[in-house]
Amino acid sequence: MNKIVECVPNYSVGSNTEIIAKIIAPFQNTPNVSLVNVESDDDYNRTVVTVLGEPEAVCYAMVLSCKQASLYIDMTKHKGEHLRMGATDVIPFIPIRNMSIEECVELSKKCAEMIYQETNIPIFLYSHSATREHCKALPNIRKGQFEGMFEKLKDPMWTPDYGTTVHPTAGVSAVGCRPLLVAFNVDLDTNDKNIALQIARAVRHSGGGYAYVQATVAYIDQKDIYQVTMNITDYTKTSVYRAFEAVRMEARRYHVEVIGSEFIGLVALDCLKDIAAYYLHLPSKEDVDLSLSDTVKVVCENFLVHGFSDQKVIEYHLKEELYVDR
Amino acid sequence: MNKIVECVPNYSVGSNTEIIAKIIAPFQNTPNVSLVNVESDDDYNRTVVTVLGEPEAVCYAMVLSCKQASLYIDMTKHKGEHLRMGATDVIPFIPIRNMSIEECVELSKKCAEMIYQETNIPIFLYSHSATREHCKALPNIRKGQFEGMFEKLKDPMWTPDYGTTVHPTAGVSAVGCRPLLVAFNVDLDTNDKNIALQIARAVRHSGGGYAYVQATVAYIDQKDIYQVTMNITDYTKTSVYRAFEAVRMEARRYHVEVIGSEFIGLVALDCLKDIAAYYLHLPSKEDVDLSLSDTVKVVCENFLVHGFSDQKVIEYHLKEELYVDR
Repeated sequence: MNKIVECVPNYSVGSNTEIIAKIIAPFQNTPNVSLVNVESDDDYNRTVVTVLGEPEAVCYAMVLSCKQASLYIDMTKHKGEHLRMGATDVIPFIPIRNMSIEECVELSKKCAEMIYQETNIPIFLYSHSATREHCKALPNIRKGQFEGMFEKLKDPMWTPDYGTTVHPTAGVSAVGCRPLLVAFNVDLDTNDKNIALQIARAVRHSGGGYAYVQATVAYIDQKDIYQVTMNITDYTKTSVYRAFEAVRMEARRYHVEVIGSEFIGLVALDCLKDIAAYYLHLPSKEDVDLSLSDTVKVVCENFLVHGFSDQKVIEYHLKEELYVDR
Repeated sequence: MNKIVECVPNYSVGSNTEIIAKIIAPFQNTPNVSLVNVESDDDYNRTVVTVLGEPEAVCYAMVLSCKQASLYIDMTKHKGEHLRMGATDVIPFIPIRNMSIEECVELSKKCAEMIYQETNIPIFLYSHSATREHCKALPNIRKGQFEGMFEKLKDPMWTPDYGTTVHPTAGVSAVGCRPLLVAFNVDLDTNDKNIALQIARAVRHSGGGYAYVQATVAYIDQKDIYQVTMNITDYTKTSVYRAFEAVRMEARRYHVEVIGSEFIGLVALDCLKDIAAYYLHLPSKEDVDLSLSDTVKVVCENFLVHGFSDQKVIEYHLKEELYVDR
């Protein structure tokens, strides 16, 4: 089987369909690349794109897309609630199939260098690709945001891995290989922020909770409720059902019910099978003898998931005959 | 209020009442020291003693007790299922009241030096008292057990903090200040070791579980069941009710019931109040307005605890007028 990489670039533009069309065109027009998801947020003034495909092809399309973003996004005029430092703010690569972390790191470095050559945007390598300890965590790099980068890059500690000078309108970008994480939110039947926070603190690792869970809270305006918003940074170690059941258990203390949940972005099929196995009383995900659709159904029923469909499973896209074997 | 320290020495002797009487006599005969628990295990061939009291008095009694152990226990003839390296295998000091970690570390060092002066038993400082990183974890020090110590101590890496040569019959001891941990076991309605192991792995930190939980399994012969046996190394971070409810949640997968639980050794009242708060639907332990006895009742009912009583709460002993204010 051929190698598959996932790429989830974040662009500093909201739902401006004209600009987004130009940015995503390279993903639509490059063979062996599949554009699987585009999510824009106007409050954040940010768009997250999900792409799957053959590594070299994804890398090539990513360079073109980044160039488009540098032509049509002007960071000197950008405002938004999400922290940002560049037109293409961050470009994470995630190994999906037949690809080691090391290969994916190499791919990210190649892509970073090509972007710099094509656009003159300086690049920091982050996460697994970082060449310096203090550049591993994206928030460290992004601190100061676009406006602060001009001063920040004068400090030798913050010399980018490629380039030296901030691009006047496209800023700075971060590129790196990171592990596949699950972004998962659980809706609580309460509009009491303090209760939601106590629950989030109880389940997250920093509060004594589960090892691979990061959690905070978010207010959902249209429902007038709070949700516990989580990243499961390694779902093979902390299964997602544990995070879900732990939220339910902590909520019981406050007579609060769990009334729904949602996955943000794509999810791997083995992550869903791991969840299904628990509710089907099976010892492990290998024992789940269900189709992709039936696995999705079991998870949605038990997790009360909304806004999910087969298309949000990575393997759904891998089944399509998009990628030519080499 | 005066300072109170807890000391929980482990001796390499089973239920030999004659020897135990000689070992515990110093705790019974020293003013301002209270002997609160003695638990012997014949399979382990080991006795765990719990003492509370004024720090200097506890230290003094501990030195005398250790000397008794060195006179009556011969490690060259000792066999047992628990790992061990000395007649008095390990001497943990735990700060209970008006005592900082630093003060407790100082006390442990003083005690270690006095023991060496009195008995010639070489001592390793461990846990918070360790002077070297590789000596923090007791299993590292104890590796090789009594029989292997003669060779091990020739390696400069394993030179004891006090003394250099293994005591021919009393071996080696470890002394240190460690935090108050909760030893807590949950009984499962199964004699399937593999199921018990899967549950233990799911709740312990090393398996992606709760941050401050160590867990393994033990077979309980007289009941023909397995139990998940846990150390909660910081119950102020990972509340004990989370560990209990997590075991119950994981057991559900296998249609296994939680049928009981037990605390090993003494437990602090605030740990029990923290548990009670959850089941009483109160936000925190500070909101639990119950007596010591009523708190114990709430915990026992919800945790299905056996073998517990008010006497196993540290504060029960602190209420007695044993310790003269200085």
